[in-house]
Amino acid sequence: MTDDSSHVRHVPARDIPVPTHLSPEAQAMLSLPPLGEAPESPSLDDKEGWWARTAVQDEMVLAALAPRAAKIDVDVEDRVVDGVPVFVITPRGTAADDPRVFLDIHGGALVMGSGAVCRAMGITSIPRTGVATWAVDYRMPPSDPYPAPLDDCVAVYRALLEDHDPRDVIVGGSSAGGNLAAALILRARDEGLPLPAAAVLLTPEVDLTESGDSFHTNLGLDSVLTARLMPTNLLYADGHDLAHPYLSPLFGDFTKGFPPTFLQAGTRDLFLSNAVRMHVALREAGVPADLYVLEGAPHGGFFGTAPEDDQLDRVVRRFVDEHWRT
Amino acid sequence: MTDDSSHVRHVPARDIPVPTHLSPEAQAMLSLPPLGEAPESPSLDDKEGWWARTAVQDEMVLAALAPRAAKIDVDVEDRVVDGVPVFVITPRGTAADDPRVFLDIHGGALVMGSGAVCRAMGITSIPRTGVATWAVDYRMPPSDPYPAPLDDCVAVYRALLEDHDPRDVIVGGSSAGGNLAAALILRARDEGLPLPAAAVLLTPEVDLTESGDSFHTNLGLDSVLTARLMPTNLLYADGHDLAHPYLSPLFGDFTKGFPPTFLQAGTRDLFLSNAVRMHVALREAGVPADLYVLEGAPHGGFFGTAPEDDQLDRVVRRFVDEHWRT
Repeated sequence: MTDDSSHVRHVPARDIPVPTHLSPEAQAMLSLPPLGEAPESPSLDDKEGWWARTAVQDEMVLAALAPRAAKIDVDVEDRVVDGVPVFVITPRGTAADDPRVFLDIHGGALVMGSGAVCRAMGITSIPRTGVATWAVDYRMPPSDPYPAPLDDCVAVYRALLEDHDPRDVIVGGSSAGGNLAAALILRARDEGLPLPAAAVLLTPEVDLTESGDSFHTNLGLDSVLTARLMPTNLLYADGHDLAHPYLSPLFGDFTKGFPPTFLQAGTRDLFLSNAVRMHVALREAGVPADLYVLEGAPHGGFFGTAPEDDQLDRVVRRFVDEHWRT
Repeated sequence: MTDDSSHVRHVPARDIPVPTHLSPEAQAMLSLPPLGEAPESPSLDDKEGWWARTAVQDEMVLAALAPRAAKIDVDVEDRVVDGVPVFVITPRGTAADDPRVFLDIHGGALVMGSGAVCRAMGITSIPRTGVATWAVDYRMPPSDPYPAPLDDCVAVYRALLEDHDPRDVIVGGSSAGGNLAAALILRARDEGLPLPAAAVLLTPEVDLTESGDSFHTNLGLDSVLTARLMPTNLLYADGHDLAHPYLSPLFGDFTKGFPPTFLQAGTRDLFLSNAVRMHVALREAGVPADLYVLEGAPHGGFFGTAPEDDQLDRVVRRFVDEHWRT
């Protein structure tokens, strides 16, 4: 059956209206033209091409994030942890003896989001977690493909455990950050490290093979991810098997241990199937897993500026609050 | 923004392949031609036309359900409860003093599914619940539109509580049955009856106004619900407001009380947004709600015959097992 391409469902061209029951802000976001065709991917050996593309996209993302980050009252300390740059972001008013840490792995398709973007993403995660957050500025391709990014995330988790009880640590990330957060848990577990208290995987890129149904059904509906990401996935994998659980954690063996996990996606999200399948896989392995789907939302929600995004922040906050040991 | 029809997303025609990671049975189901255009709806006053259409569709559904129902070892007693026919279905081996009852409200778009279909649907719900099940053969349009169907469901719930602790009762249903199950809880609550221990709403038709995004995005992808159901909804409502919470429970006020609820849909399901929005609404009201989405599934899953359907049965079974008082 796998090679019988006659069994396709032909869906005619359609005009999909903006759902009028969403907030005005969400409707406005969905009424914008799609972000446009992703620029043509450079060839895999064109490092300069990848860096140039990343620079443009990082600048766009930072421009969107900076005003939101500026409203969140935090102290940020630049630290280097076992050779890896980490932004330690502490909400103003955090008790000095509060042992809790959220380990935040930034998104950006595994090629973008370092430096100031990593810092801003870490800060905008604070409303979801309410605790001190370590935002990991991991290395990335084209200079440092797999396994370097995952090595960095695991190194920081290992260092964190030197003076933190794992029950005081929750690991999470959005999009590519959801990939690395889940992969670091699998690898840390395989290396004998204890599990964190929980995981938060928002619209996670847990399948670099892009086998889920929504990679087809939501293509053209998702106004943020307007194309599949295979060129970037191949750049990241650097010849390693895309289906290995450290690259596509969806295919991990969760019966060997995985912490309680919150998963999110949107109904128009190219990664809807990623979240849905990860949820089913965890449940099948007996791992508590909580799926939350945002009506009408593309990848990443509504730019973080709609009431629906705040709703998600509150739901995540309740989830993490229930999973700290204290 | 609500009347600005320029903000549509134009999605070109597409060929959507069958996901090859699904079970062979699920792939086979998705490879069938869609069930076809729903036959033209009769006019609202053409009772004979509706009955004729229902007879044809009931026969098809019964033919599909009967072989599965025949494999499930139960005793069935025909009872009349406060004037309403009820099939009392008891799994063979149930302890005589087991007080638990699952109140099953059958599906069928609010016009189909009575008699032998109701009985067969009740029997095939047994693997999901494992307990004695009361399958309510409620009246339906065209002879008995709203509020008659809901009246019957509420009457049976009220009668059940005469000699059952509400903590021994779980209410549920699929599709139109999910509508009536949720509506009966809202109305019973408003009438001062105690809440059941939990609710199970599978791919529920909780919004007769059909305002959700998936009524557009999944139209043409869902091979079971191949059209919207507005003519039937209008027949059912008989002039009552489609948006009233007793007709569209999605719009209920859940802060006034609603039991822990399991919700399910498929990623290709015309009712995906129904389930997603009900889940969000319950969570916002502080009601424990558990969302489970089946990858690639149209409305109703994979005809109940794929391993993915069994997986869902097991997940529902775990949910109900956790919510009985004993």
